[in-house]
Amino acid sequence: MNAPNFDFAPLLRPGLPQPAAKWTGLAPYNFTGGNNDADELPLAGLIAAANSVMAREGRTLATYGLESGPQGYRPLRKFLAQKLKRDASIACSADDILITSGSLQALDLVNGIFLAPGDTVICERDSYQGTLNRYTRLGVTAVGVPLDRDGMRMDALAAALADLKSRGVRPKFIYTIPTVQNPTGTILPESRRAEMLKLADDYGVPIFEDDCYCDLIWDHKRPPALHAMSKSNNVIHIGSFSKSIAPALRVGYIVAPWNALSRMLATKTDAGSGALEQMVLAEYCKPHFEEHVPVLTRGLRKKLDTLMESLAERFGTAAEFNEPKGGIFLWVKLPDNVDTLKLYPAALKAGVAINPGPEWSTDKTHSSSRMRLCFASPTHEEIRKGIAILAEVCHREFGVPARISNVAR
Amino acid sequence: MNAPNFDFAPLLRPGLPQPAAKWTGLAPYNFTGGNNDADELPLAGLIAAANSVMAREGRTLATYGLESGPQGYRPLRKFLAQKLKRDASIACSADDILITSGSLQALDLVNGIFLAPGDTVICERDSYQGTLNRYTRLGVTAVGVPLDRDGMRMDALAAALADLKSRGVRPKFIYTIPTVQNPTGTILPESRRAEMLKLADDYGVPIFEDDCYCDLIWDHKRPPALHAMSKSNNVIHIGSFSKSIAPALRVGYIVAPWNALSRMLATKTDAGSGALEQMVLAEYCKPHFEEHVPVLTRGLRKKLDTLMESLAERFGTAAEFNEPKGGIFLWVKLPDNVDTLKLYPAALKAGVAINPGPEWSTDKTHSSSRMRLCFASPTHEEIRKGIAILAEVCHREFGVPARISNVAR
Repeated sequence: MNAPNFDFAPLLRPGLPQPAAKWTGLAPYNFTGGNNDADELPLAGLIAAANSVMAREGRTLATYGLESGPQGYRPLRKFLAQKLKRDASIACSADDILITSGSLQALDLVNGIFLAPGDTVICERDSYQGTLNRYTRLGVTAVGVPLDRDGMRMDALAAALADLKSRGVRPKFIYTIPTVQNPTGTILPESRRAEMLKLADDYGVPIFEDDCYCDLIWDHKRPPALHAMSKSNNVIHIGSFSKSIAPALRVGYIVAPWNALSRMLATKTDAGSGALEQMVLAEYCKPHFEEHVPVLTRGLRKKLDTLMESLAERFGTAAEFNEPKGGIFLWVKLPDNVDTLKLYPAALKAGVAINPGPEWSTDKTHSSSRMRLCFASPTHEEIRKGIAILAEVCHREFGVPARISNVAR
Repeated sequence: MNAPNFDFAPLLRPGLPQPAAKWTGLAPYNFTGGNNDADELPLAGLIAAANSVMAREGRTLATYGLESGPQGYRPLRKFLAQKLKRDASIACSADDILITSGSLQALDLVNGIFLAPGDTVICERDSYQGTLNRYTRLGVTAVGVPLDRDGMRMDALAAALADLKSRGVRPKFIYTIPTVQNPTGTILPESRRAEMLKLADDYGVPIFEDDCYCDLIWDHKRPPALHAMSKSNNVIHIGSFSKSIAPALRVGYIVAPWNALSRMLATKTDAGSGALEQMVLAEYCKPHFEEHVPVLTRGLRKKLDTLMESLAERFGTAAEFNEPKGGIFLWVKLPDNVDTLKLYPAALKAGVAINPGPEWSTDKTHSSSRMRLCFASPTHEEIRKGIAILAEVCHREFGVPARISNVAR
């Protein structure tokens, strides 16, 4: 087209992020994103669920919110109330739950009622990129608390709270991913959860508990949710079906006391989240969720083994990591001279996508030689080949690993 | 539960809307909301589409964005490009389209890249409540331009633009619903569209064209979209499947030049809109959209006739309206002494929900005796009974209509 392009730039509001680039497809060896294992998607069950729920009540799609109102499809909320009780010891009813368009909308709704520019929040030092980016865009300071093999360190949390208090700062909340932490894969033990709740009470700071990976634990043993252990109703809990069923469905949820939930609901001006996906999930999950999850986690665990073996084979001792207790990602430490922000574009050129550490941490120095590798989506063969290529690229760029085995191409 | 409730109030950000009330169900005679006619929902076709698309490519649900990237399911965007060419003369490709979670997210994304507190926009004087509420929440001044039977008056638009310019104000855009305007049901003729584009060019103001009702025209004749007629690529066009297929699905779209679309895409941080709904819609619409729409509009037109007859019967000359050229709502003028903000709660108590005029207008005086009545969702019988009850309530509260016929209960 020869038409002159209208210049929108002078009319844009200040502070917008950079424009998006055109999408050019996924990398052949893709170790990024919360994508799931396509082979473990319960497709036959979802198709059967779609048929039965649409045949029975499909005409309710003609009404916004079906017949369930703005908090989301009631049968799905009822299933969640049962699941949360069984798995996480959370006592709640369908009325305490708000269905969202993925847990990302849940993040936005929680952030939206609390955060203004200049505010402070506390989170794990290594944390979910989407959360950290949101704080940056909102002009919010994120104070990162170091983790060890058992998740957020309570001595460090106590110190952070005391330090903020001494400076007259009351953080808006403690954001934590206590159950299969992203990216470290740690699980906060029950004793630490009690300590966190005590500290939260002492300082009058609520807790924002992101439990979106909690279903993916190898031994299916998890401590009660912080929400369940709280005695002061100070915990906002969010979760998702993205990791347990299918990420493209975009169904998440918030469990919160009504004095917080009613505020979020008032700002959820989207006329409801996608109803068909809620209907299909409710219909599938009620009879099948419990049997599906162990099948899924067995498959994920095997892929983790392949990834750890491939790293050992290709990187040797240059790649350090703690075996995660569940999830879909491995947090890997490379030698200090490796800068994963530079490794990233070099690897991508060779067809391998990784998450560079600094994008997943409040501490850019600590994380500069770290990377996150997601293992759910690539096949076993892609994991092996991808890690071999990554080792080659890393060797070429940083001399690490010092020696690499021959790579069959 | 006896637990003390943590007080979130001191931590909330300033300027939040009032908390939401608990949902108590829909009114028995519900003339509000963009709900559709459940009988006209193409359920068998949607079920067949769900089966075929899930069987063929359901495993792609394991990946965010399927295999289509962040702009949405490519087959749906391809269908839209063809539909928009055929129906609205818009020349665009799948790459120019961003799929959104309903046209409400489209509103938010467009507003999000342009609007900051203190900004000014131009819109029709009577306009969509959801849009007007968004401007209020954003701290944006909406300058309402009066309409006549052919939509926004161009003499009044020219005057508004000149007045703003004389005060040194450059509005961020002209927001318009040119094709089946909400709430007036008018269609802006092609000649006025050309005038609006000329004024927009003269003043360097882009146009934000909301075409979400454009499929529902009784005679299926519509002028080209403003987007299609623009020579300077200054029009952002949005639409929806809510009115043509099913509102609960929450699928809308934006068509915009890349220098604007890339900005919106960068702020769409929800990891994609619901994929199952996009897949089912694409699969259904490609072969069936064209045959479905006339069936739907025939049904809607009959309901409009029932509504207009009922109003004539129950309100007589006290209810004035122009017959809309399409859509799902009627904009009704009652005598000046009727305050529809007061009629609303009285009617609701009697089981009848209406939209009071002042919520749908920038001019609270002009609209105080007006109301919007949606006719798609209630049955013919509910329309008749609901209008009879509304007339009774209005008579009791305002003495209007002066005499009412006996109501069969």
